[in-house]
Amino acid sequence: MLPNLTPDVALAERLFDELRAATHDGVGITREAYGRGERIAHEIVRAAAESIGLECRADPIGNLLMTLPGADRAAKRVVLGSHLDSVVEGGNFDGAAGVLTGLATVAGMKRAGFVPGRDVTVVALRAEEAGSWFPVSYPGSRGALGLLKPEELQIKRQDSGRTLAEHMREEGFSPDFVTQGGKTFSKEDTAAFLELHIEQGPVLDTEGVPIGIVTGIPGSRRLRAARVVGEYNHSGATPRKYRRDAAIALAELAHRVDDRWVALEAMGHTLVCTFCVLATTAEAGFTKIAGEARFQLDVRSVNAHSVDALMETLYAIIPEIEARRGVRLELGVETGSRAAPMDAGIQAGLARAADQLGIKHLSMASGAGHDAAAFAMAGIPSAMLFVRNQHGSHNPKEDMRMEDFAAACAVAQRWAAEAAQ
Amino acid sequence: MLPNLTPDVALAERLFDELRAATHDGVGITREAYGRGERIAHEIVRAAAESIGLECRADPIGNLLMTLPGADRAAKRVVLGSHLDSVVEGGNFDGAAGVLTGLATVAGMKRAGFVPGRDVTVVALRAEEAGSWFPVSYPGSRGALGLLKPEELQIKRQDSGRTLAEHMREEGFSPDFVTQGGKTFSKEDTAAFLELHIEQGPVLDTEGVPIGIVTGIPGSRRLRAARVVGEYNHSGATPRKYRRDAAIALAELAHRVDDRWVALEAMGHTLVCTFCVLATTAEAGFTKIAGEARFQLDVRSVNAHSVDALMETLYAIIPEIEARRGVRLELGVETGSRAAPMDAGIQAGLARAADQLGIKHLSMASGAGHDAAAFAMAGIPSAMLFVRNQHGSHNPKEDMRMEDFAAACAVAQRWAAEAAQ
Repeated sequence: MLPNLTPDVALAERLFDELRAATHDGVGITREAYGRGERIAHEIVRAAAESIGLECRADPIGNLLMTLPGADRAAKRVVLGSHLDSVVEGGNFDGAAGVLTGLATVAGMKRAGFVPGRDVTVVALRAEEAGSWFPVSYPGSRGALGLLKPEELQIKRQDSGRTLAEHMREEGFSPDFVTQGGKTFSKEDTAAFLELHIEQGPVLDTEGVPIGIVTGIPGSRRLRAARVVGEYNHSGATPRKYRRDAAIALAELAHRVDDRWVALEAMGHTLVCTFCVLATTAEAGFTKIAGEARFQLDVRSVNAHSVDALMETLYAIIPEIEARRGVRLELGVETGSRAAPMDAGIQAGLARAADQLGIKHLSMASGAGHDAAAFAMAGIPSAMLFVRNQHGSHNPKEDMRMEDFAAACAVAQRWAAEAAQ
Repeated sequence: MLPNLTPDVALAERLFDELRAATHDGVGITREAYGRGERIAHEIVRAAAESIGLECRADPIGNLLMTLPGADRAAKRVVLGSHLDSVVEGGNFDGAAGVLTGLATVAGMKRAGFVPGRDVTVVALRAEEAGSWFPVSYPGSRGALGLLKPEELQIKRQDSGRTLAEHMREEGFSPDFVTQGGKTFSKEDTAAFLELHIEQGPVLDTEGVPIGIVTGIPGSRRLRAARVVGEYNHSGATPRKYRRDAAIALAELAHRVDDRWVALEAMGHTLVCTFCVLATTAEAGFTKIAGEARFQLDVRSVNAHSVDALMETLYAIIPEIEARRGVRLELGVETGSRAAPMDAGIQAGLARAADQLGIKHLSMASGAGHDAAAFAMAGIPSAMLFVRNQHGSHNPKEDMRMEDFAAACAVAQRWAAEAAQ
């Protein structure tokens, strides 16, 4: 029988306020992966964990582990957490909510005098939003799980021109942990991983349900530095047949790929397709035909076939547009990730906890990628809880009601207490 | 009977070299309208004109008149010229070729001891490329012709934020000339205006003909600061039906407008349509749906109905895209210009001169606007000669063979000598 546990939501609320005050950039929240904002957030969270009396340590690449010791220290531990970094001008809850759920959970256990059967560790992972800074997915969690390839340490941050390894070192960490094959978490020492996250879309809010239980995390295929190369010419004096217009070639490509998305959805596929950047360059200007345009493309689905069906269309259209419009497409490196199903047993446990607490929930695929995907790929049973969110995410208006967060914390705590028995 | 005249092409070649050396920006040529580069070019050209012994004066808004006096100083003069400013990183010949043709023409006349019956004036006009700097067409020539509206003096240069009048004053000129209704040229004192210009498209080069005689200058309808406003959201977690994607809305708009251009051409229309700028903004980035995009549109034809047919499609598509994609289009101010036919008598005179000299020529519409349009609108018989050009214009690779330029100068000089009899 479990004691009557409640999460320490007030602690989480206080920490949300501290994080916001310390990392507000004037527009939104900016916590650079392996940089200033993330460092500040880790300091705030570590101080709180120490004041609760948790065992705190950072692994060699900066992931922060905050542990409530269990009765059997040798048993596989239960891990709750997420990341503390953010996109540029992002919101305060994306990532942080998952770490603070963990702290609220174990703080509530400690307050009730509850000693779990095994360690319950709250983890603040590094650099989940690395995609906004480095073209690499989840270096923090993948580095902790032995899944980061040594060559990925050499990937350069787009603005600084310095490598991921250099940025890690600047923050006082040791990328050698990765090259030496180190692991902070493995399926041998970790029983389960639970990540709470704000939903990054509008589904729960529209459906009027406070929490979602995630069935899987989508895989992706991505172009981050694609170019259309044409020729600059006079916009008035160049008849159509002599043009090599990069802007209109890109417009056609994007529109036709978007039409294919519509067609795939009509056929029953579920996917998202986004031209995140679609732009002529600084050389463009009035009375000129654009000689260059750039784009970024992000295609995701829990079903790899859906992603592939869209990308096949992209690759099929390109030679035709190149030939007809006299332009050249340079797609650059395609990156991607595999889809990750969430553990069915934990999903069932979360649903049971929510039902016992009388909290409405919905099963749903994640639209975005998360650290939980890395844990799942490492063979650790993993799951995610979504909290209803207003105004989307990755923007300053991102929002979450504290009553919804409290409901999600209660579900997470009840599940964790059971899982750690 | 005319004496055996030849233009002083060597003088023009020397001046081309001087202009290039003085206004090269590292990539191309930059001669800012009412700014540094244009000022330098005027100094170079004026010094050359004075050394030939021409009467030189600048009008109150900076247009430079360099006159070879005729026998009858009171007779209507013949004017040859063009502009000396350029777009950013443009080519050396656009504009300058027309001014240097005039100088080569009158220098050749002076060398031969030829005294025309009436004044032959070479004019270096100001700010023909103003469109790249200020959103106003031909303030130099229109100001000289009494066609510039006083309120247009208050239009602000996009980068400096200062008005056209302020930039004129900074260069030592008096915009009051415009407000007081001053005129440098009128149909009462000017018999004809001839502007030589490099062709800004590839037609003559492709057809293998060195010079073109222009039939008319196109009119235009233009959007210089149009926006698509959507909403930034997470690219992975926002299903299609919840999106307000500005990037893909703009791609669809541009692609469909471009398709309409194809359809209009198939129906026999001749026009050009260019999305000069088509771009998500600096806020866009990976894992975000673009909440804003900007574009510039330039539509031109010698036939106003063709321009209108395209713009009607644009305006018809917009509400449908807004409704379906949840975005808002803000088109900003639409600007434009009327088409200007060239004088049939001068066209015939130029063709006769070319035939007598054994120089192949082609009749063709201009694709771009030019100062000659302003002269024609002021009721002055006006015409244009095009010179074959490699690699288009408004770019650093713009090129012209000196033998073609010499042929065009010979035609211009022969016509001018006849016209000034």
